[in-house]
Amino acid sequence: MDDDAAAPFDVERVLASLTLEEKASLLSGLDFWHTQPVVRDGQTVVPSVMVTDGPHGLRKQADGADHLGIGDSVPATCFPTAAALGSSWDADLLRRVGEALGRETRANDVAVLLGPGVNIKRSPLCGRNFEYFSEDPVVAGALATALVEGVQSRGVGTSLKHFAANNQEADRMRVSADVDERTLREIYLPAFERVVTRAQPWTVMCAYNKVNGVYASQHDWLLTTVLRDEWGFDGLVVSDWGAVRDRVAGVAAGLDLEMPSSGGRTDAEVVAAVRSGALDEAEVDAAARRVLRLVARSLPALDAPGSFDVDAHHTLAREAAAAGTVLLRNDPVDGAPLLPLAPEALAGVAVVGELARTPRYQGAGSSQVNPTRLDDALGALRAAAGADLPFAPGYAVAEGPADDRSPEALVAEAVETARGAGTVLVFLGLPAAYESEGYDRDHLDLPADQVALLRAVAAANPRVVVVLAGGSAISVAPWQDAAPALLTGWLGGQAGGSAVADVLTGAVTPSGKLTETLPLRLEDTPAHGSFPGELGHVRYGEGVLVGYRWYDARKVDVAYPFGHGLSYTTFAYDDTTAEVTGSGTGSRVRVTTRVTNTGAVAGAEVVQVYVGDPHAQVQRPERELKAFAKVRLEPGESQVVALDLDARDLSYWHPVLRRWVIEGGEFRVAVGASSRDLRAELAVDVTGEDVTLPLRELSTLGEALAHPVAGPVVRRALDGSPIDPGMLAMATDMPLAVIADFGLAGFDRDALARLVEDANA
Amino acid sequence: MDDDAAAPFDVERVLASLTLEEKASLLSGLDFWHTQPVVRDGQTVVPSVMVTDGPHGLRKQADGADHLGIGDSVPATCFPTAAALGSSWDADLLRRVGEALGRETRANDVAVLLGPGVNIKRSPLCGRNFEYFSEDPVVAGALATALVEGVQSRGVGTSLKHFAANNQEADRMRVSADVDERTLREIYLPAFERVVTRAQPWTVMCAYNKVNGVYASQHDWLLTTVLRDEWGFDGLVVSDWGAVRDRVAGVAAGLDLEMPSSGGRTDAEVVAAVRSGALDEAEVDAAARRVLRLVARSLPALDAPGSFDVDAHHTLAREAAAAGTVLLRNDPVDGAPLLPLAPEALAGVAVVGELARTPRYQGAGSSQVNPTRLDDALGALRAAAGADLPFAPGYAVAEGPADDRSPEALVAEAVETARGAGTVLVFLGLPAAYESEGYDRDHLDLPADQVALLRAVAAANPRVVVVLAGGSAISVAPWQDAAPALLTGWLGGQAGGSAVADVLTGAVTPSGKLTETLPLRLEDTPAHGSFPGELGHVRYGEGVLVGYRWYDARKVDVAYPFGHGLSYTTFAYDDTTAEVTGSGTGSRVRVTTRVTNTGAVAGAEVVQVYVGDPHAQVQRPERELKAFAKVRLEPGESQVVALDLDARDLSYWHPVLRRWVIEGGEFRVAVGASSRDLRAELAVDVTGEDVTLPLRELSTLGEALAHPVAGPVVRRALDGSPIDPGMLAMATDMPLAVIADFGLAGFDRDALARLVEDANA
Repeated sequence: MDDDAAAPFDVERVLASLTLEEKASLLSGLDFWHTQPVVRDGQTVVPSVMVTDGPHGLRKQADGADHLGIGDSVPATCFPTAAALGSSWDADLLRRVGEALGRETRANDVAVLLGPGVNIKRSPLCGRNFEYFSEDPVVAGALATALVEGVQSRGVGTSLKHFAANNQEADRMRVSADVDERTLREIYLPAFERVVTRAQPWTVMCAYNKVNGVYASQHDWLLTTVLRDEWGFDGLVVSDWGAVRDRVAGVAAGLDLEMPSSGGRTDAEVVAAVRSGALDEAEVDAAARRVLRLVARSLPALDAPGSFDVDAHHTLAREAAAAGTVLLRNDPVDGAPLLPLAPEALAGVAVVGELARTPRYQGAGSSQVNPTRLDDALGALRAAAGADLPFAPGYAVAEGPADDRSPEALVAEAVETARGAGTVLVFLGLPAAYESEGYDRDHLDLPADQVALLRAVAAANPRVVVVLAGGSAISVAPWQDAAPALLTGWLGGQAGGSAVADVLTGAVTPSGKLTETLPLRLEDTPAHGSFPGELGHVRYGEGVLVGYRWYDARKVDVAYPFGHGLSYTTFAYDDTTAEVTGSGTGSRVRVTTRVTNTGAVAGAEVVQVYVGDPHAQVQRPERELKAFAKVRLEPGESQVVALDLDARDLSYWHPVLRRWVIEGGEFRVAVGASSRDLRAELAVDVTGEDVTLPLRELSTLGEALAHPVAGPVVRRALDGSPIDPGMLAMATDMPLAVIADFGLAGFDRDALARLVEDANA
Repeated sequence: MDDDAAAPFDVERVLASLTLEEKASLLSGLDFWHTQPVVRDGQTVVPSVMVTDGPHGLRKQADGADHLGIGDSVPATCFPTAAALGSSWDADLLRRVGEALGRETRANDVAVLLGPGVNIKRSPLCGRNFEYFSEDPVVAGALATALVEGVQSRGVGTSLKHFAANNQEADRMRVSADVDERTLREIYLPAFERVVTRAQPWTVMCAYNKVNGVYASQHDWLLTTVLRDEWGFDGLVVSDWGAVRDRVAGVAAGLDLEMPSSGGRTDAEVVAAVRSGALDEAEVDAAARRVLRLVARSLPALDAPGSFDVDAHHTLAREAAAAGTVLLRNDPVDGAPLLPLAPEALAGVAVVGELARTPRYQGAGSSQVNPTRLDDALGALRAAAGADLPFAPGYAVAEGPADDRSPEALVAEAVETARGAGTVLVFLGLPAAYESEGYDRDHLDLPADQVALLRAVAAANPRVVVVLAGGSAISVAPWQDAAPALLTGWLGGQAGGSAVADVLTGAVTPSGKLTETLPLRLEDTPAHGSFPGELGHVRYGEGVLVGYRWYDARKVDVAYPFGHGLSYTTFAYDDTTAEVTGSGTGSRVRVTTRVTNTGAVAGAEVVQVYVGDPHAQVQRPERELKAFAKVRLEPGESQVVALDLDARDLSYWHPVLRRWVIEGGEFRVAVGASSRDLRAELAVDVTGEDVTLPLRELSTLGEALAHPVAGPVVRRALDGSPIDPGMLAMATDMPLAVIADFGLAGFDRDALARLVEDANA
């Protein structure tokens, strides 16, 4: 750091001292990772600060590295990806991981860590899903909030990304996400909203794509109306790298910082636009002020970077990966489930699958970390067993050791390894080339050679445990009959291998739950047929029916539902209650349930509260997650869990009123161990807001009859009309103006105008 | 008619003689059913002509009747509804029905019959589906064309309706159908386009609803750009009754005639708008000219109305209803199918179900005809048997005879009637209140009392034939295990009862095929969750995947697929060929197949040709019907059927180029007896148009590499770039401008600009 920077940095004083050219220069990067400094007469007026990728670990690239996301970077702890972290449903854990990430960021003289990503998993095909938390905005928002709080508690910033509707990699730098406002408000924006309003991330990163035809990098409604005016965001908006199409429009819309450098080109455009009157200098000032505030915020930590404990962070990464591992299935074989592996069972284990030795632990792209160390499951299992457990790779992966044997020979060896073993652990997963930033998958399948291996092994020894690796949903239906036990560690970071071993041996009792549905088939997924769009547009045709909302609305069977995850113990729910207090926007619902560990080992359960609103003016999802809590219980222990819902949790976005409304009536409140394992469902009555729309001449007869003022008048006017009770159904949707014109009731246009006036008086 | 009207009516001379007020008066109705005359000094300058509902029979209301569509009207032949007519897939039959409708129209001094309707059955719930032909635009367009040709051959006009995207009754007078252009062009407009371009209906009726936010009655793009400029429509556009919201905007957009009368209000608005300069008088002239042309066209027939043969038309109605009856299932019972009923079997029949005695033969609303006579299936079966076959109503319908017995007593009687019968014919169907113009269904189920009856009867006697009545898809899955034989006569018009009897006895061999999928569940239907929308908008989220296109794309099982229908004989297909000639927009494919009647009775088969285009730039449906032919064959007879496809049949609507394009490559041509009973599938190679989009700075690397000029240049520029083959997947969707800005390849922005210029030169 420069001497000057150590002096108190007065944002307003500095800003006032800057020329237009200097201010414009602050609005774009110095290079790939640094903001521009302002140096005047050899004195640093504004220091440069560094930002780096990425959500689950620091990716601080060395100078001169490539800029596609794969180059050398300084070693850092590779924590589990968001797909794995999210599956923990554990906000406290996310906060601790965030603190660790913050320490590493700070120790590396970096001001802002570019994450987390809270985009919604619209389709399991999205190549970057591993960087996102969930198909549900409540899970994504709650966990990202904790992560941001953790990082920022260390005096460094985060960048909440990619704002907004960046739900695919295909054509991501151009495609327009065509999506109605209600769907944006209810599905794609709330995770951002929650993080912004509760944790104030230092920065928000705009997305590459267009939203309804306008690039996110110059989307005034997104960047200013919603983000700042409605949500009160007080930080800086940075572009995704290379997302700027029209810098001047971006400044006007609220995009403060363009990254990376434009080589001065866009700075000059901004200056010219101000000079020509096309851009108000106040807009430049506002953006420059936010850059200066970011610098000011960063200076204390940059002055005292500190250090971090590599071993402790590795241990935390292992804890997090185990917490995010989801036990999908654990059916009895020969009368008992295969997991956990007691010591004697562990001794009889055979391990199959190259991924046990050559782990896949993160995805490719900007989040790719150079880990401080790397655990593999095979080594961890051997260490736990204290024995050289037999292993056969079964198939090759590109990153694994060279092996010139044929696929058939590999399978034959694996079958021989598995035959006679007490239990076979088969490690399968998506190859690295299947999922990455930059492109999407086009199917949900495992490679055929892996499925063939599993079939051959299971034929020789049915006591099979399949351990999956992959950053998003994998179709398990084609082969899971061969896997009486099945778990996924997702992409679990550098300690994912040892974490999976912890779960397999029972050192850790699994408590992860799915944050995304595992569908039976690609054709069942909500966006099938409209993902990833084409020729510049993607239609969000499924609207709010994303993830489990779709499968529930259409009563589609799934392989494993949202919220599902088994334990080595069992939990009972009883005494569930739901108590309503207040009314309208002051409504609250307190949901309580008593959870009891009814099994023999300690474990943790994720209690999920779902809400349904079957009688609203709009078609709402059958049920939506609104709250959750993770509780740890010893065998036999009970705990009463209380979860509070507020009015927003019962509300929908009204497309005409363009605001959240809580419509009165009966709501369904369910408490479940998954979205399809509801343990109690209660009806509660809520006194809503008045959402009667003003009466108009084009209001329908049905609307008029339901209107408190107009209703009785219109009912009288139907006396003697051809609209008798038998005809009412056919006329209900007829506008009053048409009824008047047709002479069907006792009012003409003039009388109707008076009626409308009276009704709205 | 007035004496003056008998004189030659010179449209241009008359138009030139009219005042602005007189011209404006022509643009709205005189009353509910007549155009306004112009009478000057007691002389009729322009006579008034009458128009009447409706598609499948004349509904000429008496003066003073109500205007909701149910009042008394003169007797007319009630032909089968479009749902039934469409299921015949028989254009020749439709033409003959059209001729009969035309004769009745003419005999009643009516100028225009207000039909047919060619809206697409987006959801089976639409209350007016019985008035529409199909979920597929090719069937709808081909059959409506024949009907229009038939009607108009009698010197009277038709009104093709409801233009456009009127696919629901819910909120139909206000709702905006929010639908992208490709979907409009490929699904919702082509039936209109085919009828307009091939049969020139005298009038087109605009829909009530909005399309993408603009009322169809004032939608310039629909009424002028597409209908007149692109398709060459030379007739008059009339509003649906009461569809006008802004008359002046309507005149400007191309809505010629507002119906019914506005009492002079909108005429005055038009005059005022011209006087104020808000509306060009030339627009008024154009609309008035079209009204005058309609009058001129109508006069010859009005001068010589003629008469019609009531008996012959009834016979034709019976033929048509039988042709539209679809035999869904005819499984063997005790080794042989139950149908047809040979004379000895007929003698042992028991008839159950009130609908056998009190038929449902049409829907409610503007299409409701006062029939010249009415056949019921019970009477027809008794006549065919020459015996008083036992009958029990089993359930009551509102229109049936009063019966104060309990539901249980009715079922008990029916069970006793059925027990011991050789065959039980169970007549079931949707009650009249379930489907009507003006509102939609909210489920697909039969009434519970009918299902209970069926279950009870089938338990007593499993030799059950179920005969369905209803104007749209009914869910059969819940009960069809109790119906080894199953047919539907839809809403078959006044002779529907005798027609069904003809099919049951084998007097007519069934040859109808489904023009709409019968789904297993409502939740499986394409628009589920976005039908009928809410608060003024309905999102066509499924895009082009309507009907079978959806079920195929998502591999969803259905009860009976589009195109399905059994016969009492069987057909074999062989020697199928597909020969391509020409290229680009001159491409043709001749498909031939030899069909052989391999059974013991004469019958007719509907040969269906489906096309798939798996490699297009846009996601296209798996297969789409493009041509069909109905062939009648004696036992053992063969016929080679040749069906010609043109370039349009292979094309899709390009959303960026905004025109039809035929993209070269492999197409799949299938010949089938239904959409899921394909008898042959052939790959053909088509030389398409060049659909390469111009290269832009925002073209992606992938697009550039595929470009004939830019490709080699860009490939060279990648030499030594970090975008090596291993990184290519991640960079394929990156725009060239971003690659230049990031310094990832050997070109900067200036070099890129030159490259783009060269590529497009």
